[in-house]
Amino acid sequence: MRNIKMTVEYDGSRYKGFQRLKDNDMTIQGKIEAVLSKMTNEDIEIIGSGRTDMGVHAYGQVVNFKTKSTDSIEKIQKYLYEYLPEDIVIRSIEDVGERFHSRYNAKSKVYLYRIDNNKFHNTFNRKYSYHVEKKLDIDLMREGSKYLIGEHDFTSFASSKSKKKSNVREIYSIEIQENKNLIEIYIEGNGFLYNMVRIIAGALVDVGLRKKTPEDIKAMLEVKNRAEASDTAPSKGLFLYKVKY
Amino acid sequence: MRNIKMTVEYDGSRYKGFQRLKDNDMTIQGKIEAVLSKMTNEDIEIIGSGRTDMGVHAYGQVVNFKTKSTDSIEKIQKYLYEYLPEDIVIRSIEDVGERFHSRYNAKSKVYLYRIDNNKFHNTFNRKYSYHVEKKLDIDLMREGSKYLIGEHDFTSFASSKSKKKSNVREIYSIEIQENKNLIEIYIEGNGFLYNMVRIIAGALVDVGLRKKTPEDIKAMLEVKNRAEASDTAPSKGLFLYKVKY
Repeated sequence: MRNIKMTVEYDGSRYKGFQRLKDNDMTIQGKIEAVLSKMTNEDIEIIGSGRTDMGVHAYGQVVNFKTKSTDSIEKIQKYLYEYLPEDIVIRSIEDVGERFHSRYNAKSKVYLYRIDNNKFHNTFNRKYSYHVEKKLDIDLMREGSKYLIGEHDFTSFASSKSKKKSNVREIYSIEIQENKNLIEIYIEGNGFLYNMVRIIAGALVDVGLRKKTPEDIKAMLEVKNRAEASDTAPSKGLFLYKVKY
Repeated sequence: MRNIKMTVEYDGSRYKGFQRLKDNDMTIQGKIEAVLSKMTNEDIEIIGSGRTDMGVHAYGQVVNFKTKSTDSIEKIQKYLYEYLPEDIVIRSIEDVGERFHSRYNAKSKVYLYRIDNNKFHNTFNRKYSYHVEKKLDIDLMREGSKYLIGEHDFTSFASSKSKKKSNVREIYSIEIQENKNLIEIYIEGNGFLYNMVRIIAGALVDVGLRKKTPEDIKAMLEVKNRAEASDTAPSKGLFLYKVKY
């Protein structure tokens, strides 16, 4: 059967998250499936590379779905663009082999966490960043971030709701960029536990505020206890930036 | 009497424009005056450097107001930050001489017009840019913009609703920047007629689309007839960027 891969950009502000819920269409998955099902007269189910929580955004969520449709890729993208709400945009679309699976085949994911570090918030970024009033020390944040690189047990950095068998994950890189008052943290890894990026962002903010030292990040990892790490940073600063295959 | 100057950033999406209207508080001026009047127990009137239309944004609108308040500048800014909606932010505030007038003393204004030049719009910029689907030729736009520099009668580039005595204005510079699919046009001048920046943006888009030639801009100026120029580009792409004194 035909298998189609799409890269999806969305503003998560209005949504209860990516994953379809019962009797509720305010999810990204629900919206996309409704349009595709209407177009194809099939009961389309899309598979996302992973969930994103309520209020989390995406530049590059990747999904795939099976269909009997013989419409051209261009026609499908155009139809989706016309019928999806303007806060969900299909960035790219392509036919892929039948065995492609957006979740199982993902090699790594890149998340972006965005901080508006300004005494008074930037109004145009208010829905797309976490406003931190006090000046952050970026060098300390970079120093702290280094302890997270590599393969670790991230139990301290996972929501206690997380029920994965193993909490070992590998972080390939953390890059912190600063442009005027906007701080962007790019985190690439082979997989992420529930709330992991937001807890890492919270810990790095604590380091930037000198509430914690860079070495405290190392200690947080070692203690393997969620209660010992920092608070979870708000969802509105988080973007699923890219999924690599 | 004490005279205070403020630089105001606002997201104009929800508002009917800057200027206070009767029996309607959905204006920037109305919102700010209400908070200041409550704080001071005076009937505060703020003077803006100029109006902005419904849906137009500002990074740097400048206003001033007279007050008997003896509160510190910091306290006033904090109070405004607390009580203004989050789409209006006072960027800076200072005491100025009694004769400072934000409109009469303005030496020049810089407007920014932002275009999302992308087959499918960027969802995070959807309220802050004009989406143009077809690829624009930036070099042609730059060439066309040169005819507008200097002192000209801008009758063709003013809404026919404009009732100024003279339509002669001077444009000091037009700078067009491009970053990926985002095009930013910065226009500085000594004054602007009603809708002038949006009509200029519309004309430059027509040139970028090759619907008009750069030389047509010269002809539009010379004919001094609004009907001969381009359409007015949408308000959501326009920002009052800076006012210079």
